[in-house]
Amino acid sequence: MHLAYKVKMSFPALLFIFSFFVSFSHAAVQDFCVADYTAPEGPAGYSCKKPEKVTVDDFVFSGLGVAGNTSNIIKAAVTTAFSSDLPGVNGLGVSLGRADLAPGGVVPFHTHPGGSEIAYVAKGTLCAGFVSSANKVYLKTLKQGDTMVFPQGLLHFQINSGKTPALFFVAFSSASPGLQLLDYVLFKNDLPTEIVSEASFLDPDVIKKLKGVLGGTG
Amino acid sequence: MHLAYKVKMSFPALLFIFSFFVSFSHAAVQDFCVADYTAPEGPAGYSCKKPEKVTVDDFVFSGLGVAGNTSNIIKAAVTTAFSSDLPGVNGLGVSLGRADLAPGGVVPFHTHPGGSEIAYVAKGTLCAGFVSSANKVYLKTLKQGDTMVFPQGLLHFQINSGKTPALFFVAFSSASPGLQLLDYVLFKNDLPTEIVSEASFLDPDVIKKLKGVLGGTG
Amino acid sequence: MHLAYKVKMSFPALLFIFSFFVSFSHAAVQDFCVADYTAPEGPAGYSCKKPEKVTVDDFVFSGLGVAGNTSNIIKAAVTTAFSSDLPGVNGLGVSLGRADLAPGGVVPFHTHPGGSEIAYVAKGTLCAGFVSSANKVYLKTLKQGDTMVFPQGLLHFQINSGKTPALFFVAFSSASPGLQLLDYVLFKNDLPTEIVSEASFLDPDVIKKLKGVLGGTG
Amino acid sequence: MHLAYKVKMSFPALLFIFSFFVSFSHAAVQDFCVADYTAPEGPAGYSCKKPEKVTVDDFVFSGLGVAGNTSNIIKAAVTTAFSSDLPGVNGLGVSLGRADLAPGGVVPFHTHPGGSEIAYVAKGTLCAGFVSSANKVYLKTLKQGDTMVFPQGLLHFQINSGKTPALFFVAFSSASPGLQLLDYVLFKNDLPTEIVSEASFLDPDVIKKLKGVLGGTG
Amino acid sequence: MHLAYKVKMSFPALLFIFSFFVSFSHAAVQDFCVADYTAPEGPAGYSCKKPEKVTVDDFVFSGLGVAGNTSNIIKAAVTTAFSSDLPGVNGLGVSLGRADLAPGGVVPFHTHPGGSEIAYVAKGTLCAGFVSSANKVYLKTLKQGDTMVFPQGLLHFQINSGKTPALFFVAFSSASPGLQLLDYVLFKNDLPTEIVSEASFLDPDVIKKLKGVLGGTG
Amino acid sequence: MHLAYKVKMSFPALLFIFSFFVSFSHAAVQDFCVADYTAPEGPAGYSCKKPEKVTVDDFVFSGLGVAGNTSNIIKAAVTTAFSSDLPGVNGLGVSLGRADLAPGGVVPFHTHPGGSEIAYVAKGTLCAGFVSSANKVYLKTLKQGDTMVFPQGLLHFQINSGKTPALFFVAFSSASPGLQLLDYVLFKNDLPTEIVSEASFLDPDVIKKLKGVLGGTG
Repeated sequence: MHLAYKVKMSFPALLFIFSFFVSFSHAAVQDFCVADYTAPEGPAGYSCKKPEKVTVDDFVFSGLGVAGNTSNIIKAAVTTAFSSDLPGVNGLGVSLGRADLAPGGVVPFHTHPGGSEIAYVAKGTLCAGFVSSANKVYLKTLKQGDTMVFPQGLLHFQINSGKTPALFFVAFSSASPGLQLLDYVLFKNDLPTEIVSEASFLDPDVIKKLKGVLGGTG
Repeated sequence: MHLAYKVKMSFPALLFIFSFFVSFSHAAVQDFCVADYTAPEGPAGYSCKKPEKVTVDDFVFSGLGVAGNTSNIIKAAVTTAFSSDLPGVNGLGVSLGRADLAPGGVVPFHTHPGGSEIAYVAKGTLCAGFVSSANKVYLKTLKQGDTMVFPQGLLHFQINSGKTPALFFVAFSSASPGLQLLDYVLFKNDLPTEIVSEASFLDPDVIKKLKGVLGGTG
Repeated sequence: MHLAYKVKMSFPALLFIFSFFVSFSHAAVQDFCVADYTAPEGPAGYSCKKPEKVTVDDFVFSGLGVAGNTSNIIKAAVTTAFSSDLPGVNGLGVSLGRADLAPGGVVPFHTHPGGSEIAYVAKGTLCAGFVSSANKVYLKTLKQGDTMVFPQGLLHFQINSGKTPALFFVAFSSASPGLQLLDYVLFKNDLPTEIVSEASFLDPDVIKKLKGVLGGTG
Repeated sequence: MHLAYKVKMSFPALLFIFSFFVSFSHAAVQDFCVADYTAPEGPAGYSCKKPEKVTVDDFVFSGLGVAGNTSNIIKAAVTTAFSSDLPGVNGLGVSLGRADLAPGGVVPFHTHPGGSEIAYVAKGTLCAGFVSSANKVYLKTLKQGDTMVFPQGLLHFQINSGKTPALFFVAFSSASPGLQLLDYVLFKNDLPTEIVSEASFLDPDVIKKLKGVLGGTG
Repeated sequence: MHLAYKVKMSFPALLFIFSFFVSFSHAAVQDFCVADYTAPEGPAGYSCKKPEKVTVDDFVFSGLGVAGNTSNIIKAAVTTAFSSDLPGVNGLGVSLGRADLAPGGVVPFHTHPGGSEIAYVAKGTLCAGFVSSANKVYLKTLKQGDTMVFPQGLLHFQINSGKTPALFFVAFSSASPGLQLLDYVLFKNDLPTEIVSEASFLDPDVIKKLKGVLGGTG
Repeated sequence: MHLAYKVKMSFPALLFIFSFFVSFSHAAVQDFCVADYTAPEGPAGYSCKKPEKVTVDDFVFSGLGVAGNTSNIIKAAVTTAFSSDLPGVNGLGVSLGRADLAPGGVVPFHTHPGGSEIAYVAKGTLCAGFVSSANKVYLKTLKQGDTMVFPQGLLHFQINSGKTPALFFVAFSSASPGLQLLDYVLFKNDLPTEIVSEASFLDPDVIKKLKGVLGGTG
């Protein structure tokens, strides 16, 4: 049965199409779940916008096209396209980010509690590494065009080891992978120095000095 | 220790039962999550009805017992028991459907974005197939009583290749597997003909003719 | 750019196609994982057959087309299309089965440890039910054409409550949902009667009698 | 680049830190999803409390430190730290419980529809077991300090087989694993005796007697 | 207790460290599962290399740094860093790819059966779009620096709508998302023309012409 | 139909039982996947032992009943019942451990890359805490009988803040959660001091001193 035949029956066909549409109409639900930031959040992500309110702009984000400001203590900036930034990625199990590093810049030791990372070096040269639970070091100099994987939950870092600005893009296995910076945990909050010292083996003087730099108290 | 012994101590036993009940009372939550269509939906499905409002009818559906109307252009009808139809299946990772095909009927090329399918032929003869990412064709004539698997996300189709009506039941690995019909994507919406042509290699005349039949514009 | 244009450049096109093919060639892996019963099994299912050995028959099964033999103590038979029966369903998170019940037949209390169930009554009348963790009973008389959901892990049963044979099909949210029959656990193995009695509150005499019927020892 | 150098530039550093903070500020979302019991529940668990309302006490629970009252018919008590008890465990895929058994006490045949269990014997001696779908019995006498696994959805039990009180702790692979007691299903609800009999092979007299003890009707 | 104190007890400390190491030594397993292409594959991915054979190079890939050859019929090339290309990404639920499009180039209608996609435009201008199950079109002109999400399993395309080469990077929510090109399914295999026609509504002449161009038979 | 009736037909019943057994025999597969340490491991865990070789002892472990040796630099010991220790827990998404802390002992800052933790204090007093991605501190003094949740992937610690030995049990949402000790990452491997310094903001002298204590090089 070819279309040529069907085309002949044009008017009734339109009628048929209607009933066809009705039969299939239930299948439209839940291709995606664009974040509705005003409704409750759950363990699987944000609540979904009503489908009729979703537009293509919910799936589009321009923030990753702009270099972050690296005039800061780490000479680096990270910009994210997580579900909190880009509503269309909610519930889809993937997200993106970019990291800009001035010469001497560093994304210091950190983990993503909720996902694995894969990075692509778009510009410059990086010294990147992670350490496994078995305490084995995986260290590599990455050139422009290189890709490197950082498995879930492991401490890792990226240092601009070149003389020019570096840029890399990162993808995550979660729409909301999180980011925990080691130095923030140790030195940029109100966890008492004595406790930090006991839990890290660092001398209280070292901790206090870095708390001073990073703005921690206690 | 046998029950016979316990039965003797009937009154205190009832007392004991009460404290027993209290001890275990927290375990009742979340055996299921019957869809509450009035509350927000999330990436994992609909919100749950309050347990005290759930009745057995939330788990029962009669729609699959009725043959769909095949008086349409594809001479076929699909009826679903997805979470949008049957609230009790919400969050459980499985759903059902039925497809009725008049002689000459076809469920044309389609995918289920959210799940795999397994079909059972209850009546008639089908020519069914799917194509893998490696572009290998898996094609089979299915007789009454045959079962066939269609792995997640792959384009597939079912054609009534017999002379009598055909009926098959389908199960999915999702409570909301979705259904994307290829011809709808290409010819039954407002995606401009020129873009469809560039993205499909089809000649604009072919596209315009089919847009006319299926009700697409642009 | 239309196809009409491209068709003109027929020979070089074939050349182009080759490099196109190469670029995309990595994407073929893991659309499916047809069970290789000779290789090790893992928590996610069987190992995969090499793709080049997979044929369409790995996805097709005829066992569900044959009524089970109900000449047995429960006057019922269950036939499955699990990953152990139908290699193509391995890893896909869905499977099927059929249950035939002679008049008076019953699928007695059971659970599927690994998945939820949704049943469709193809013939006859059933009395079906499940009990929740909160000990609420969900009981329904199902007629031909009715569908009922049995949420994961809960004890449920189906009784042919009519005077004619009954047939229902079941889909599961797992390729290997398992099936644990209560009477088997209690009365058809070597778990000592005294322990069964302590763990079930049943009188040892009751247990011994049923062990006798079902073939249990101890 | 060492910190010593950075410390010198103290004031601008504080400025830099601010922009650094801004760059990273999106990453804070969804490290956890503390249960908000007043908002809708979904298939993945409770809705999340607003992060600014979360305190450490949402992650802390004292209920497992108190022995349950075993003055009841099973001489046992189960206390849970599920997501319905301990809001901080919502969505995290793990939970805890404790079971106290007086001499002669028993946690009778039961399943956890939503998860696997691993038990640690803190005090006393247990006779514990589970039965597989293949109807094989896995039975063991557990002494203080022993750990035993009970795979998802399988009927199992624990009997205090010693002469002193027993205590064991249980962990589950779900924040809301559920608990279905076999005797409750059979004898402690309004499922008619005749149906229980047909679905369990037990004699109506046996059922009625136990319904009398456990408070079931019908 | 500060480290300063501990440092004094240097020799015994080394002894202590040894027993400490032993206590923690079991935790090293399964931070990652680098693909061993010679062992069986399962539904969750490739088998793992022995940890002692894993090196940093298993996590590093240089293929995405090289532009694909666009001298082909679609004037486009896709290069992937899937688990079949980059062993370190196996099992981690994320992967990358790049697409190069000459002026007039197109990544024609396709789906990724196993995952969602998020794309970042590194160079040029794209016209990109996807269609939902509800047959709503989501179409956007993307400029350099723009990001766009393509939800799981939905047909989508990317056209270089500018006059210069375009380059975009894509991340997926799977280490092996697959790629199914619509034109390959319809025109580049041995599925008989008559069946393609019935399942697609396309005229056999149209199909035969395109089979000629793309190398399909039947 | 009651059992009483069935019992009468004892000999034919045994015959019936046989065919019943055959009908159900496929359902036995994959209730569990006891680790076979000699076969390949995959992303979902170890390969499974053949069911006929599995015994109850594969599900039982006595290691958690023995206090760890705390005569070491941290005055603490962690003992695990992960899938690498207890084969029966493989693939089940849960595991256990115990931590013994002498007075002054500490489980220093660490993460579990693969899962969340819930801890129960069996003896003594702990000062425990974790820090979120938003850099908020969740700190609590835990007494015997208290339970505390540590969400997935976040740095946390437990310090014996009492004057007597402390003991706590931990459950994880993974059979193989991993354990990454911060001090090991920073000071107990061959990651060059200069890189550790750049990625941690710690002064090289501090790093070298601690590398000396913990046995790191570089």
